[in-house]
Amino acid sequence: MKRIAIDMDEVMADFVPKHLAYFNRRFQEKLTIEDLHGTRLRLIRPHLKEELTKHLSDPSFFRDLPVMKDSQQVIKELSEQYEIFITTAAMEVPASFTAKYEWLKEHFGFLNDMNFVFCGDKSIINADYLIDDNARHFKRFSGQGILFTSHLNVNVTGYVRVNNWQDVREFFLR
Amino acid sequence: MKRIAIDMDEVMADFVPKHLAYFNRRFQEKLTIEDLHGTRLRLIRPHLKEELTKHLSDPSFFRDLPVMKDSQQVIKELSEQYEIFITTAAMEVPASFTAKYEWLKEHFGFLNDMNFVFCGDKSIINADYLIDDNARHFKRFSGQGILFTSHLNVNVTGYVRVNNWQDVREFFLR
Repeated sequence: MKRIAIDMDEVMADFVPKHLAYFNRRFQEKLTIEDLHGTRLRLIRPHLKEELTKHLSDPSFFRDLPVMKDSQQVIKELSEQYEIFITTAAMEVPASFTAKYEWLKEHFGFLNDMNFVFCGDKSIINADYLIDDNARHFKRFSGQGILFTSHLNVNVTGYVRVNNWQDVREFFLR
Repeated sequence: MKRIAIDMDEVMADFVPKHLAYFNRRFQEKLTIEDLHGTRLRLIRPHLKEELTKHLSDPSFFRDLPVMKDSQQVIKELSEQYEIFITTAAMEVPASFTAKYEWLKEHFGFLNDMNFVFCGDKSIINADYLIDDNARHFKRFSGQGILFTSHLNVNVTGYVRVNNWQDVREFFLR
């Protein structure tokens, strides 16, 4: 059985809208996701770099993120033909561990929690495919990277790209 | 650079003495580590199975475990010639996440936390070597398993065995 590793933030969990709303409220700005196309908050507001992630250290931030459209249904279908692992770069925000675990148990209760992986450098992941919105994880990944479109990667080329979970279904279950 | 993945409990952190002390205090027993040779508490006290891990859900349990003798020095030496990842089966005790992270930062501050991996099924680990006291993790591991002696595995054969961290040094740095 082939194995698919799946990233959480911006792939299963809709992270950016909440993150951006916190930023706009705190600094009285009106940035939209379009303003972040191909870039990051810390690159367009470098003087605020230290402040930008402070709210992420609140363990509850990750607990109520919306589920990405169709991800539950498609991952359930994939899990019948592939071995599914969830691989999230949680070490960047250690306060998120428990909230991320509980979020997965709530929304993806059909997955085995022995297949949850909280890591940093994803080159440690042994899988045939990695669905991720951050192409840097593909550089040393031994399998095939599948780039899940997010504001960050709209200009990235050189990888199989999927724009949404229906595209993922098409790629793996066509 | 070859990569070594290293388990935490019973390899870097001395888990069993504290676990056993809790058990003996709670159930007024006098079990020793010798009583656990080749077995587990839940196998020799099956009627207490549900009770045995209750204290592990206290997040502080993992925070002050003693460091295994020589592990700091040897892992520091290994890190100069190998890429080191810490791979712990934390999903079995989700309450342990933060304590395990803090413990690693306190005692192994020279390691990069991007190389910490909290997982369940270790077949997801992509490394050349895995130092672990639980041989079940070697079954589907793609690299070489190195069995670190603990009460659990004294009767296990078929793997390279190391009894302590000086043996690990000898294996990798001889």
